[in-house]
Amino acid sequence: MARTIGVIGGGQLARMMIVPAIELGLEIKVLAETEGSPAHLAATQVGDYKDLETVRKFAKTVDVITFDHEHVPLQVLETLESEGVRFEPSSNALRFAQNKLEMRKRLAELDVPIPDWAEVNSASDLDDFIAGHSGIAILKTPTGGYDGKGVRVVRSSSDATDWLALGKPLLVEEKVNFVRELAQLSARSRSGQWKAWQSVQTIQREGVCAEVMSPAPNADYSKAKEIAEKIAIGLDVTGVLAVELFETFDGILLVNELAMRPHNSGHFSIEGSLTSQFEQHLRAVLDLPLGDVTAVSEYAVMLNLLGSDDKNTFVEHYAKALKLGSGAHIHTYGKGARAGRKMGHITALSNESLDHARAKAMAAYEALQA
Amino acid sequence: MARTIGVIGGGQLARMMIVPAIELGLEIKVLAETEGSPAHLAATQVGDYKDLETVRKFAKTVDVITFDHEHVPLQVLETLESEGVRFEPSSNALRFAQNKLEMRKRLAELDVPIPDWAEVNSASDLDDFIAGHSGIAILKTPTGGYDGKGVRVVRSSSDATDWLALGKPLLVEEKVNFVRELAQLSARSRSGQWKAWQSVQTIQREGVCAEVMSPAPNADYSKAKEIAEKIAIGLDVTGVLAVELFETFDGILLVNELAMRPHNSGHFSIEGSLTSQFEQHLRAVLDLPLGDVTAVSEYAVMLNLLGSDDKNTFVEHYAKALKLGSGAHIHTYGKGARAGRKMGHITALSNESLDHARAKAMAAYEALQA
Repeated sequence: MARTIGVIGGGQLARMMIVPAIELGLEIKVLAETEGSPAHLAATQVGDYKDLETVRKFAKTVDVITFDHEHVPLQVLETLESEGVRFEPSSNALRFAQNKLEMRKRLAELDVPIPDWAEVNSASDLDDFIAGHSGIAILKTPTGGYDGKGVRVVRSSSDATDWLALGKPLLVEEKVNFVRELAQLSARSRSGQWKAWQSVQTIQREGVCAEVMSPAPNADYSKAKEIAEKIAIGLDVTGVLAVELFETFDGILLVNELAMRPHNSGHFSIEGSLTSQFEQHLRAVLDLPLGDVTAVSEYAVMLNLLGSDDKNTFVEHYAKALKLGSGAHIHTYGKGARAGRKMGHITALSNESLDHARAKAMAAYEALQA
Repeated sequence: MARTIGVIGGGQLARMMIVPAIELGLEIKVLAETEGSPAHLAATQVGDYKDLETVRKFAKTVDVITFDHEHVPLQVLETLESEGVRFEPSSNALRFAQNKLEMRKRLAELDVPIPDWAEVNSASDLDDFIAGHSGIAILKTPTGGYDGKGVRVVRSSSDATDWLALGKPLLVEEKVNFVRELAQLSARSRSGQWKAWQSVQTIQREGVCAEVMSPAPNADYSKAKEIAEKIAIGLDVTGVLAVELFETFDGILLVNELAMRPHNSGHFSIEGSLTSQFEQHLRAVLDLPLGDVTAVSEYAVMLNLLGSDDKNTFVEHYAKALKLGSGAHIHTYGKGARAGRKMGHITALSNESLDHARAKAMAAYEALQA
């Protein structure tokens, strides 16, 4: 049986994959960009994931490769796949995660509900779309964006002269008037097994995930799951798939973004689900039977720990935070402190209410601040 | 805050300490005896823990040192303590874990219930004790024994001529006529906080732990906890303390063995307790507030996965075992296969009964064989 998993990228997602690898007795090796990455314990190689030779060398040390992020160039993936290297997800799926324009085209083909969109190749393309959508739109660079980067609200093509000057196609979308944002996490294996966690509600602040509530209160769970399954199959996704959704004032769900890897919206599953997203990802990548994703408690709330400055790593406040005995589970990622950086997260469970879970998490959150 | 924990020994206990270190964002470094140990992911040094210079070098890379086993020579510990190195547990406690004769003397001083015992320095010492105890006794080498090694049933001094010839004191104990064996796991921090998990029942086969039931059905929990606390304080134990107990036909609890580290009888706590023994051990070693040890479910059963031959590492049967969807949690330790070796364990939880938990664990256990 394939049992040595390679992970490209040494961030917190790779770090959290190490845990189920230890527990299940699987070998895990990480190709990190830098020394001292969050996943340094499993880092067997440090190098540039954009370099074919670097990735080829790494591939020779593992049975199958998965990812901490979606940024490995498609050409690198395709070349190595032609040499027999197994990536999960494969280049067939990742091409859509890497290019938002390709993703929109494919989702439209699949008849998945998405916001109005168009490809923009000129200022007039953009102005036409804006004119047809109440004078406002969301402009995106098809590649390279994450956590709010590569996304801009525009009211005229003059708001995007820099991007238009690059001469590359852009993606424009309607600015969806949404009530809230949801996410649907699921996992699919190569042999086709698919399992979905409960739909969650996410709260973003300044384009970064701040809070996740599981389950999303009063949401159309069956629709969210139907969309996620359609995408997982239609885009041939293997491993964890996160589908970020807008819920409109009419209660319609529209797909916002996709991530083909464990995702911030699924961190609650470490304590909140019988099988965490990280264990499920490893199972899916190895094409092992997927685990039971039943919730461990009625409610879970996850709060992200974003860096407040260049000093507080939160660990120095553990004595205070753990003394509360609130039952909140504190995770930090071993990163140097930097304002706005994702440094860790807190999950609290409750059988009473989301508010009860949030209060427990918030107590720990506050104790960890300066 | 001290946050870099050193662990001497690269076995499965060190391996399982890596998990809470990753989750809590603590640094963990392991001094392993060999390359490719179960804890190899965190192994920053490979060397002989009996060598002062090796341990001194390791100590310089960490804030505090704890253990995967109790075999570091007392002299090494004492020398480095005099140089300012912090060990948890310290040599003050470990002297009792390393020497069963010293342990019996100290427990007798503390008035902890123990089997009848005597120090043996000659054949006649031994024959006298045997004569006073219905012609049978348990003879132990005070140092170096574990998992049934260094323990022998004797009916006459002629059963122990080899050990007596060594000219070192031996420990003889009455052969306790016990109904069953229990274990009481607890943890204590340097500043004196102490917390105990539920008392468990253990089933040994050929001197090796085979099964653990949590909680032990119908046991004198308060007595078990009282004994454990007395020992933790009286022997100045820090970190996890496992107290193995005999329950006699009169319902009396007698202390059999001690372990001053996470212990096989506490593996159920990974899934079965809000705070696992491995997380609690790290907290205690860093003198952080101890976590809540409330049980996650009414019942938990752990089965050890002992090697059946030199081939089956159990991982190759995961597809079959995980397909059962029994909800059992399978752990393997990344060891090469060897008959009788502790290769992993399985824990299953239930709110119905111990039998229900055992059935779930046993289904996975059977699927992992051959």
